[in-house]
Amino acid sequence: MRPQDIIRRKRDGGELSREEITSFVAGVVSGAWADYQASALLMAVYLTGMTTGEMEALTQAMLRSGEVLDFSDISLPKADKHSTGGVGDKTSLVIAPLVAACGVAVPMISGRGLGHTGGTLDKLEAIPGYRVHLDLAEFRRVLGGVGYAMMGQTAEIAPADKKLYALRDATETVESIPLIVASIMSKKLAAGLGALVLDVKTGSGAFMRDEGRARALARALVRTGHSCGVQTEALLTDMSQPLGAAVGNANEVQECILIMRGEAGEEAGDVRELSLELAARMVALSGSVASLDEARREVGRALTSGAALERFRRNVEAQGGDPRVCDDPSRLSDLTTREVRVESEHAGYVVSVDASEVGRAVASVGGGRARVEDRIDPAVGYTARARVGQQVSAGEPFGLLYCRPGSDSEAAAARIRAAYTVGDDAPGQVPQLIKEVIAQ
Amino acid sequence: MRPQDIIRRKRDGGELSREEITSFVAGVVSGAWADYQASALLMAVYLTGMTTGEMEALTQAMLRSGEVLDFSDISLPKADKHSTGGVGDKTSLVIAPLVAACGVAVPMISGRGLGHTGGTLDKLEAIPGYRVHLDLAEFRRVLGGVGYAMMGQTAEIAPADKKLYALRDATETVESIPLIVASIMSKKLAAGLGALVLDVKTGSGAFMRDEGRARALARALVRTGHSCGVQTEALLTDMSQPLGAAVGNANEVQECILIMRGEAGEEAGDVRELSLELAARMVALSGSVASLDEARREVGRALTSGAALERFRRNVEAQGGDPRVCDDPSRLSDLTTREVRVESEHAGYVVSVDASEVGRAVASVGGGRARVEDRIDPAVGYTARARVGQQVSAGEPFGLLYCRPGSDSEAAAARIRAAYTVGDDAPGQVPQLIKEVIAQ
Repeated sequence: MRPQDIIRRKRDGGELSREEITSFVAGVVSGAWADYQASALLMAVYLTGMTTGEMEALTQAMLRSGEVLDFSDISLPKADKHSTGGVGDKTSLVIAPLVAACGVAVPMISGRGLGHTGGTLDKLEAIPGYRVHLDLAEFRRVLGGVGYAMMGQTAEIAPADKKLYALRDATETVESIPLIVASIMSKKLAAGLGALVLDVKTGSGAFMRDEGRARALARALVRTGHSCGVQTEALLTDMSQPLGAAVGNANEVQECILIMRGEAGEEAGDVRELSLELAARMVALSGSVASLDEARREVGRALTSGAALERFRRNVEAQGGDPRVCDDPSRLSDLTTREVRVESEHAGYVVSVDASEVGRAVASVGGGRARVEDRIDPAVGYTARARVGQQVSAGEPFGLLYCRPGSDSEAAAARIRAAYTVGDDAPGQVPQLIKEVIAQ
Repeated sequence: MRPQDIIRRKRDGGELSREEITSFVAGVVSGAWADYQASALLMAVYLTGMTTGEMEALTQAMLRSGEVLDFSDISLPKADKHSTGGVGDKTSLVIAPLVAACGVAVPMISGRGLGHTGGTLDKLEAIPGYRVHLDLAEFRRVLGGVGYAMMGQTAEIAPADKKLYALRDATETVESIPLIVASIMSKKLAAGLGALVLDVKTGSGAFMRDEGRARALARALVRTGHSCGVQTEALLTDMSQPLGAAVGNANEVQECILIMRGEAGEEAGDVRELSLELAARMVALSGSVASLDEARREVGRALTSGAALERFRRNVEAQGGDPRVCDDPSRLSDLTTREVRVESEHAGYVVSVDASEVGRAVASVGGGRARVEDRIDPAVGYTARARVGQQVSAGEPFGLLYCRPGSDSEAAAARIRAAYTVGDDAPGQVPQLIKEVIAQ
């Protein structure tokens, strides 16, 4: 099959066959397709779209470009969750132990933060000693022993995605729904799942700020998951303000441990609620309980009984981390950081928070990455007190910025301050956390 | 300017600024744009189009990527003509001497044939000794001395076009009107013209078979020419059958010489008519006469008086060719070729001729090129006797195929025979040679 013929068909808005898509992905990996041919096809896909059948074929071809993990020796059902990324989005740290405690194995392959968003791997590395670079044998051992394991993408998993992502990044074809779907699904399905729950974010801190586009993405993900034979659901959730209070790394892990300890305050209510709902859906979709309501009761019990915390502790231990953080979360923080109060200039109501600006401000003082090669300082972060709808007086802090002496903390604090809009009247409505459930 | 920002704007259907287009073209030549970024932009242009302003900026940027010839020392007005290519399209050989004889200089930079179409340079090389590889000093000398000069594209002229064309060819973005416009105009305008007439072909032997697309191309070319400050007109002309009787190289030159000698038969009537009209429009647009009608009278006189043939003879001599071909055109043909009659199997009327099939058949026995690196045998060709609308009896030849002993002449003859459709009734209407004049 000539690359030109495949490019032409998509250019003209036609539907590519499974064979054509397989030939494209194989050609990108082997070099039979030149980069400039691949990028021309990517742009044609961006502009003319793909059917569910094409997305499924692309997902499968990318998945099969690498190793597909086989955990059939672990007899438990397997489920995973994926978030499209946000600010303060730390639910994976709560969900994985919660679902494992309910008897569903979670082989979670996660990513790192970039730009305004954080990444699960970076957060985990805030735990002293924690190792996210496991080989497959270790990953399998931790998964079998603890019920969940966390690691980063390896070179063996969906190598076509790595190559295509680099091209998309350089050619402004990242934001294409079919290409996003295949990228997410090919990596997630490499872990041999039976069920997958997607947390598709929308709002100021999301990659897809526009709710309509986010909904379209959620639907495409769910349809493609079903086509690939995986029980799939998506929640469309709010990212118009950071999720929970903590934005950073150590402080986000701390927030999660406090939730699992039952000690978290009201400001972590949304993290708790979203974690429970996503976990319940993973358990329900795995078929180990009769209904979603039963799954909700089960994950609720796993949280309050301490079973989730116990799984978390065992995972930290198994992956080389210091389990004492579970008993004393203050071990995560670093006493050499200094706190900068980010204060409201006016009295009034918090009308909105530009979550991406908060994420970028934290990244600017070392809590995130501007470029892939940047190193993260886990102790740096921002912990909010004020949320949308809340009343503040002049001089009252929106929250605290933790940074290193010598970093440009004033500029970062000013950036966070500017991210808050304070008005005279309470906002008409506070954004709803879970906007929609997309089941098929 | 980042390539990504420019790609994104075009991807989203926006209009690129002159600075952005200039930066793109410069980046393609310098390597600051990766090939995969350039091809992504080319696909975005293919799918979202360009405004006249963008086409003009792209033309100018490509033009300025190389040398712009300055013939201001030649005081005559300068005009040129460009054809989008066809089968048997030999008008340049008649037009250049005709226009030069009317006092308008023609610095003509031409191309070679590929696929089913012939090229002016290949035809000229059928004249023993004729050199098309002139350096710029020679070109200027011949132009100044004879009033017209013919040469091939040099590496100095619009190098961005060469690079972009190679990418377009590999990524199915050749057939984009804005990219075709910029490619044609950047090369033509490098010769510093005051007037340009375009012969845009449509029908079975043309690149744009569809009349609507050909018309759109003609309009875009004319608008862009005007934007670049050049008097520009386009004729939309018929290429549903070969132009004139001869398809090949030596036989095409012979047909042109016979036209200039006043000895051509009726079957060359369309070549003569189209050459006269294109030439008249070049003379009129150059402003050296008061009206198009006056220009028509002048070029008519230049043809019948023998002035055009005289210019042709001087040009052949100046470019190293044997001028005796002007007096005895049989010197062009080669006695070692053999003639194969291509006969009609049935009696009836010629309803249509697939011109591209005739072109490909001639190429298959050495009269054209399948690939850029193929060599052409000038003596090989096909000379038609029957045209659309004409009556033929069974066994009467459609024409004669000239080929070398040992070549697969039977297959080529069968292919030409199959290109003719013979019906019981005369076709309702014979295709009109000049379908439309597009002046702005």
